[in-house]
Amino acid sequence: MKAALVSVGDEILSGEIVDTNATEISRALTLLGCRVTLRLSVGDDEEGIVSALESASRKADLIVVVGGLGPTRDDRTREAVARWLGRPLRRLPELEERIKRFFEEKGRSYPEEVLRQAEIPEGAEPLENTVGTAPGIRAEKEGKILFCLPGVPAEMREMLKKFVLPEVRKMTGGEAPPYATLMFCEIGESSIAQRLADIWPRYPLLRPAFYPRHWEVRLTVRAKEPSEEARSQLESAISEVRARLGEFIFAEGEVPLPKVVGDLLKEQRKTLAVAESCTAGLLGKRITDIPGSSDYFWGGVICYANEAKMKVLGVSEGTLKRYGAVSEQCVREMARGVRELSGADIAVAITGIAGPTGGTPKKPVGLVHFALSAEDGEWHAVRIFGGDRESVRMRATTTALDMVRRYLLGLPIRERGV
Amino acid sequence: MKAALVSVGDEILSGEIVDTNATEISRALTLLGCRVTLRLSVGDDEEGIVSALESASRKADLIVVVGGLGPTRDDRTREAVARWLGRPLRRLPELEERIKRFFEEKGRSYPEEVLRQAEIPEGAEPLENTVGTAPGIRAEKEGKILFCLPGVPAEMREMLKKFVLPEVRKMTGGEAPPYATLMFCEIGESSIAQRLADIWPRYPLLRPAFYPRHWEVRLTVRAKEPSEEARSQLESAISEVRARLGEFIFAEGEVPLPKVVGDLLKEQRKTLAVAESCTAGLLGKRITDIPGSSDYFWGGVICYANEAKMKVLGVSEGTLKRYGAVSEQCVREMARGVRELSGADIAVAITGIAGPTGGTPKKPVGLVHFALSAEDGEWHAVRIFGGDRESVRMRATTTALDMVRRYLLGLPIRERGV
Repeated sequence: MKAALVSVGDEILSGEIVDTNATEISRALTLLGCRVTLRLSVGDDEEGIVSALESASRKADLIVVVGGLGPTRDDRTREAVARWLGRPLRRLPELEERIKRFFEEKGRSYPEEVLRQAEIPEGAEPLENTVGTAPGIRAEKEGKILFCLPGVPAEMREMLKKFVLPEVRKMTGGEAPPYATLMFCEIGESSIAQRLADIWPRYPLLRPAFYPRHWEVRLTVRAKEPSEEARSQLESAISEVRARLGEFIFAEGEVPLPKVVGDLLKEQRKTLAVAESCTAGLLGKRITDIPGSSDYFWGGVICYANEAKMKVLGVSEGTLKRYGAVSEQCVREMARGVRELSGADIAVAITGIAGPTGGTPKKPVGLVHFALSAEDGEWHAVRIFGGDRESVRMRATTTALDMVRRYLLGLPIRERGV
Repeated sequence: MKAALVSVGDEILSGEIVDTNATEISRALTLLGCRVTLRLSVGDDEEGIVSALESASRKADLIVVVGGLGPTRDDRTREAVARWLGRPLRRLPELEERIKRFFEEKGRSYPEEVLRQAEIPEGAEPLENTVGTAPGIRAEKEGKILFCLPGVPAEMREMLKKFVLPEVRKMTGGEAPPYATLMFCEIGESSIAQRLADIWPRYPLLRPAFYPRHWEVRLTVRAKEPSEEARSQLESAISEVRARLGEFIFAEGEVPLPKVVGDLLKEQRKTLAVAESCTAGLLGKRITDIPGSSDYFWGGVICYANEAKMKVLGVSEGTLKRYGAVSEQCVREMARGVRELSGADIAVAITGIAGPTGGTPKKPVGLVHFALSAEDGEWHAVRIFGGDRESVRMRATTTALDMVRRYLLGLPIRERGV
């Protein structure tokens, strides 16, 4: 089964907003075994939408249109769909009622215009929008199925789940080719690719793809068909990968690293504190992205200024003078300092040069030192990250989180990167 | 002048990655007065690319293709372009040399396949890639101009700037219709829209658009034409907006709030420290997103656990017992505590309930208290934010940053939101 998506909106074509709706729908359809073969974006312009519908219907069995269902005269999806179907728009009294009620319940007045949203092409089916006012539309033409969804992400998501996906699941049998996702960190994409290169030729039904992001790499292995043979190839290929690179795999499936670390901490009833210089709170932020992190996260110190390192964490002035703030000595004192201050079981510290300025030949931009302090020992690590300020900081927090993961799992904590 | 974009890649259609390249290019072209009228995304499939090129060339004078120029057999853009142009692919020796050199300089071996990247259609022009190995392509057909750029964002960006934009600028005269951007915070989109509604009918050449994101709203006002009249309408409309909502405008042009606050701190030679409970480092992270923030940012305390609030910031046990961690009393003590600890001129503190759990009828999810402590006074604010955990935390840091901005500008610090 093939699908095509049409995104409608001037704000997409002018680059004012990123079209994340299209990505979300693509992903959801793909996971159900429906292949997206074409995506189109057009402006708020009837002509353009009609011609997109024509292109889409030549390439696909299912067409999903997103956007252009709003209340203003700019919103042209309803008119375009009516034209494409060759049927007139009709205003449905029950839809009109719903829209009026929506505003009345909130005690808000509404312009006459919003009632345009009660219009749908004759013979088409309205789809209830429980989040906002614009109903969706379902229609058929020459065996092709068309869905129109509103462009507001929360409304789109709700209606995709409620109307589109169940129908797709029925049509594909929900039988997507099997796939597996492995999450790696602290190892680069090309390194992983090289170490696994000889595996794939032995599994002709599989297609691996690497998606690197901030020093984490997502490996997705997709089978080309939903057969038993494909399933068994997938299983053995994944165990081969596990056997070779196990320590670098922090999750199977798309689990974020802070969640993995948090679950381990909870399991082992350990608490964590942080001391952050160059990341200045990003590590704490990532740890607490996970709801319930108060079970194991004490907090920490953002010691951006050297004074903060000395005063709150007890880093010695001698260390700062002799080795500088970006040094093994300093980061060890930071980790020890915050562990003492907090009484947490594990403390992890980061200090480095995020750039773009501040680098020297001996201490280049991207140089970051790490330390983990615990009751049973202390570990140091150092990395030189490429990329811009944001990337260096993200990568640094990933290395720190991975140190905690490795500590909790009894895996080696590598002083230098691979 | 009209443009169409074609994004090539299975990973786009399967929703594995968000197509930010298309957004970036759309924006850059729009700013130069070139209208993007159509965007297409197709898979790594020659047929699909050719048919996208045909659709694109019917709608536009300029076509930009991104992706599919890599070294593997999956990369089909070169072949598709050759077919569309009706000319054979030729391997250019000078390109081959460059690619070989690229690998040799890094001391890396390379598979024969990468040399496919030296092939371009006869009569087309190769575009130098200074970031990676895949050269771009420039070609013409029946008065239409075609650019092919690699899909790696850094490479795309470099070549867009170097080859595509200069040519577009020449063709449009670089004369985009004038536009202005105003950045608002601490006021909602609908509130702004309502307070400005009567302005726009008086300026028929202008088109305002609101882009809300995390309690910040970007207002873009675009003129419909690049005329003198449009320019003067834009100027007076913007001064009207300024006169009405000035205190909520933190920047003209797309300057991030932490940069605005940082510049004010630098100008006034003041230093800042933070105490973060529910945001747990996100505020520090945002402040230090700005290079050079070490000039004014001392750091702070992530006091996620109550113990951290007491031990490091001196919040009294009585306060926590009597009023709870999410209270005016507690946040004031946090701000005072971190100002004393740091000796910074200004301290700002955040404590709240980010959700999704932890809310009560009296203290619902989204409730956040703020305090700003300075030599000349102390201010408290409280907000109830909607949205999910991420949104509550982002909004909270924006309110905190805006308190600092208002303090430094001598604007009122509103205890409750508008």
